[in-house]
Order: sequence, then structure tokens, then C-alpha cells
Amino acid sequence: MATRWAEAMVVSAVSSEEIRVDLGPRSYAVVVGEGLLGELGSRLAALGFGGRCGVVTSDRVGALYRTPVERSLRLAGFEPVVVVVPDGEEHKNLATLSRVYDALLAAGVERTMPLVALGGGVIGDLTGFAAATLLRGLPVVQVPTTLLAQVDAAIGGKTAVDHPAGKNLIGAFHQPRLVVADVATLATLPRRELLAGLAEVVKYGVIGDAALFARLERAPEALLSLDPEALVAVVASCARQKAAVVSADEREERGERAVLNFGHTVGHAVEAATTYGRYLHGEAVAMGMVAAARVSHALGICDAGTVDRLRGVLRALGLPMDLPGDVPPAALVTAMRADKKSSKGRIRFVAVEQVGRVRFVELTAQEIAQHL
Amino acid sequence: MATRWAEAMVVSAVSSEEIRVDLGPRSYAVVVGEGLLGELGSRLAALGFGGRCGVVTSDRVGALYRTPVERSLRLAGFEPVVVVVPDGEEHKNLATLSRVYDALLAAGVERTMPLVALGGGVIGDLTGFAAATLLRGLPVVQVPTTLLAQVDAAIGGKTAVDHPAGKNLIGAFHQPRLVVADVATLATLPRRELLAGLAEVVKYGVIGDAALFARLERAPEALLSLDPEALVAVVASCARQKAAVVSADEREERGERAVLNFGHTVGHAVEAATTYGRYLHGEAVAMGMVAAARVSHALGICDAGTVDRLRGVLRALGLPMDLPGDVPPAALVTAMRADKKSSKGRIRFVAVEQVGRVRFVELTAQEIAQHL
Repeated sequence: MATRWAEAMVVSAVSSEEIRVDLGPRSYAVVVGEGLLGELGSRLAALGFGGRCGVVTSDRVGALYRTPVERSLRLAGFEPVVVVVPDGEEHKNLATLSRVYDALLAAGVERTMPLVALGGGVIGDLTGFAAATLLRGLPVVQVPTTLLAQVDAAIGGKTAVDHPAGKNLIGAFHQPRLVVADVATLATLPRRELLAGLAEVVKYGVIGDAALFARLERAPEALLSLDPEALVAVVASCARQKAAVVSADEREERGERAVLNFGHTVGHAVEAATTYGRYLHGEAVAMGMVAAARVSHALGICDAGTVDRLRGVLRALGLPMDLPGDVPPAALVTAMRADKKSSKGRIRFVAVEQVGRVRFVELTAQEIAQHL
Repeated sequence: MATRWAEAMVVSAVSSEEIRVDLGPRSYAVVVGEGLLGELGSRLAALGFGGRCGVVTSDRVGALYRTPVERSLRLAGFEPVVVVVPDGEEHKNLATLSRVYDALLAAGVERTMPLVALGGGVIGDLTGFAAATLLRGLPVVQVPTTLLAQVDAAIGGKTAVDHPAGKNLIGAFHQPRLVVADVATLATLPRRELLAGLAEVVKYGVIGDAALFARLERAPEALLSLDPEALVAVVASCARQKAAVVSADEREERGERAVLNFGHTVGHAVEAATTYGRYLHGEAVAMGMVAAARVSHALGICDAGTVDRLRGVLRALGLPMDLPGDVPPAALVTAMRADKKSSKGRIRFVAVEQVGRVRFVELTAQEIAQHL
């Protein structure tokens, strides 16, 4: 599969797209294309970096892409210091973070040394947080290798590790200097993770891009078969929307960024109630989106056709739609109340009006659960 | 001694001074006065906070001031959650931080809950970093109880914990919402720590306040006898200068903030070469300032009289002036090179021109050591 990536790099005839995240002095580009790993070194050099750089990756992703990334960096004159951590959300914690600190400090990290996060959301969050806090802040470059990370986690500067009390409870906002999303890396993504990532793509369609949603309805197979042109177009559409939301509300202070939580209130509750072991995040979000649409319909905010269209797309993409039968509503209520986004018992719920348009409704966990 | 504080709170006739740290949306006040702990609750309420709040303190400081602080908070309607950590720089690490996270998460911390850092620099740095990273950022209020923290560490948003590879290597910039410096708490400060704090006061005189320096020359005994009026005036002068430097260069990006490093290049090296066990930070800074003045004189940047005036003030305040005889210059060179502020072997050294005025000189560690 790594060979396939190398071929793609050489023969790619798909044009890249570049999206700007507009945040004043913290602005940066998100580049989406095929075969971009080979350009990583020159893109870092173009930002003014040089000398040593850190690369944090996981066992699995490192085995696939560490070699081409290191080659690209060395060709551009960098001396990469590579830190490999185990795969899995269960390692996104203070203990792994501490080992990343140890390795980079042992290598004599300096304030001007960029860290490259090469991997999925776990690597991006962990590396981003390490970069946010080592020497009070190092530059970070996100190189997401999962669909979920390419359309969501790698953009926007949210970094974190988990705590036994909950996910992402320890973290910081730390914008990357560059995001490089190479869709060729999706060829090695386990099928289930690809589909889970597509749930977040559907979400972008629902919250603000009716054309993207229509594209998914029309030709789901282009994405399922990893057609590079379709992937670049779709990932870029999502990245554009995420960039706009982040530019308008960098730190979730004005609340606008919270539209991204569509499907996540119930989705997170499902993940928590099944102790994060049963569903991938995107699978839970797929169920959560259907739940959010049902709540919206019950409150008279959208028509039944909107719920049907959402279910239709998710079905075509092979994603789950119905809440697990063995999780009692009371467990979901408890989990929603414990969510760090709830404030004094009120939840800012993202309701859908029609495909491409959402709005906020203040609800209690109990009110949401009534309509599930 | 706690009784003495309580009396001071009631009878204080010394007016408070309020200094504004001007950082746009992150601006805040530094209040310097006598008996301010009793006003803490109402000052927090005036900022719009309410409900639960965290208080992080140390064994020693907690035993002295936890009760009046909790009383003040409760009187203003707060429900304080108190976390006590052991005293000492050796506990300013990831392990203690992790216990602070655990305690606050177990108490159900929310994003709107402020953390009060009640203690010296260790507590301020640790609590500030916990606040910077819990739920990606909680408000923090600094209540410094040492002279060093009142004039320096509590103002400016630098937070950190130490790592075996060095001090403050893991941290963040996170501005407090308020700083409350109650000089009555200095009555319980061990004498040696008071004197060490005075070294930083001398530094402010040298780098930008000739009148403050002259006051120290004229009446050192007012400070040594803890005259409250003198303490408020001097702490406020230092805070005013620190606030100005921080406002001009919040994250040490423009380099202006680095004037605060006067005496610290050699001072840090002395601390590192003696493995942080022999001298208090201020004592090392006192030696480092004399060293910096000697280097400045050797380079023709100041006259011999400036070195003499500096030594005179330090002597009157009972502070060390001469580098330890048993630390070879080579050890200092090694330590200066390892300093995280050095960049590609060059050190931005703060040289004194005359009392009240400094400038930067680019030097190597070797060049500095030549003149010690």
C-alpha cells in the first residue's frame, strides 16, 4: 500500500486545493491534494523553517509513511527527530504525552523547531498539545492521514489529551502553521475508519453545504472507491467550511463554532454510554445526527423529508443510523449532562432546519431524550 | 503570624494601588495593598464569577491563609474547592499537575469556574498551567504570597512546570483575570525568601526605575522591617514596570520582554550548576546582576560606579554578590549554552548602561564567562 502512495505521488494528475484559515497573525493554509507527503519538506522550508524538526507519529502510520516523510524533510535540508507512539485513543493521555516531552527534550528541542503531527486525530491532538506546551509553544504542522482528521481535527487548533474523567479534558488552543491533507494516505485507512470519516463529511453537508450533501446523495460510490478527484473536492469543501467556522470563532467564545457539534451531543453520549469501546467517533456521530434530525422534526424545526434524506445518505455510505437498543435513554441523559459543553444543565443543541441550514436550541438532556 | 495578618486586614490604613496590565481583551488589574485577602471574594464576584471556584495552595501557605481566603470566598457566595499540594520547587512537575487535574475533575470543574492560585511562584506557575489546560482554559486569579511572586511571577501569564531536563520546560502563556498582592502575607515569609525577593526589586530599579533604586539605597531598612507603606509602594512600582513590559511584548515575541532577564543569564547558570539546591532564585539573580554589571563594565557599556552602586544596595539588603568559588567557569558556560533562551549558541545578554537603563548585547556563553 505504501507503494501505491509512492505511485500516486509521482503520477497524480489531480490538482491541489488551498484553503486559508483567516486568524490574523495566526492565519495558515490547509492544502488538500494527492501525493502531498513528498512536498512536505519544501512546504516547511517555504514557511521559513530549517534545521531540526520533530515528527510525531504512531506505530501503524509510521510504518506506512515515516520513510517518505523523512525523505522529503531531508531533501529539503531538515534533520527530523522522529517520535513513535502506540496507536489507539487509549494512549492519548498524560503518560504518552510525558514520553513525547521526554523524547523531544532529550533531543534538545528549541523554540524554533516545528513539530510535524503525522497521523490521525489522536496523533494530531497529542502532538498539537505537546507543541502548545513544550517551551511554552512550538510551531506545529498537521499532516492528517485519516479522513476524519483531514476534514475536522487537524484544522482549528484544538489540541488535547484524555483523562480518566473524560475525553479531551486537558488541552489547549494552538493553531498549526500549516495543514497538509494528502488524500493518497486514505488508501491505507481501514475501511471502517473511512466510513466513520464520511459521517463527518455528511455533517458538513447538513450544517452548511447543501451542494456537498447533494453530491453525496448523487455519487456516494466515488468516495467509497477512493476516487482521488472526488476525495480532494470533498475534503476541500469540508476544510473550507471548517476554516470559515474557526475564523469566525477561534476559541468557541462566541458560540458560532458550536454548529460543528451537530450530531455530537447524542453522539458523544452514545460513545460515553458504551465506554468508547463499541463505536468509532464517526459512527456515533452518524447515529447522533439522525437523533438530532428526529429531535428537530419533533420540535417542528424541520420536515420529515429532511430526516429521510439524512438516513438515505448514511445508508448509502454504510453508516449506522439507529441508536443501540441496549443503551437505556437514562444512560444517554446522564452522559449528556456530564458533557463539558453543557452549562448549568442547559445544552446548546444544534437543530437542523433543512439540509444546509442549522440553528441552536436550548434544551435539557431530558428534553432531548424524550424525542429519541 | 496568621493573627497578625487578621489584625492588618482590619486596621490597615495603607491605601491600595491598582495597576492595569493592558492586553486588549486579556487586560486585567494588579491590586497591591495590605489586608486584601479579606476582599478576595468580593473582587472575584465583581469580575462576574459566581458559584464554585478552585483554590490551589501549598501545605505551608494553606495552613496560614486557607481559612481567611475560604471565608472571604464563602461570604461572597462562592463554594471553594481547595486543592493542597506539597511545598517546594521539586513538586512543580507533571506528577503534581496530574494530581491537581484529578482533584478538580473529580470535583466536576466547569469552564466558567475560576482557579485561585494562593501561594508563591511554584503555586502560581502550577495553578496557572493547570488553568491554561483544564477544559482548554479556565480563568485564573493569582494571589501571590511571596515577594518574588508579587513583583514578578504572578504578573504576565507565564505558567509552567519543570521537567527533569530543566525548569519551566512545559508551560503556556495564560493571563490571569486578576492579581491580588497582599503585602500582609509577607509577614509570614521566611526571612531568606524575603531577601531573595528583594533581589528582583533591585533588578526593576536597574532595568528601568532609577527612583526605585535610589529609594532602596536611601532606606533599605523600611523594606527589611516590612513597613507596609514602603512595601505597597515598592511592590506597586515593580508591578507597574512588569505590567508595561508585558503589555508591550506579551509572549516574548518582539524580544522587549527580555529586559526582565537582567541578571538571569548568569543567575540561571549558577542555579543549574549548583543543581538548584544551594541558592534561592533571587540569590542567584543577585550574583547574576553583579556579573552582568561586571560584563557591562568590561565591555565599556557602564562605568565602575554603576557596579559599585549595585553592590552597595545588594550588601545593604543582605544579598550575595560574588559567584560561588567552587563552581568552575566551564560549568557556567555549559549551563548558559543549555538555557532555552539561547538560540543557535547566541545569547541576548542584558547589559546595564547606568542605573535605570539597560540594553541588549549579543554574546556567546564564552564571551560572558571571560569577564566574570
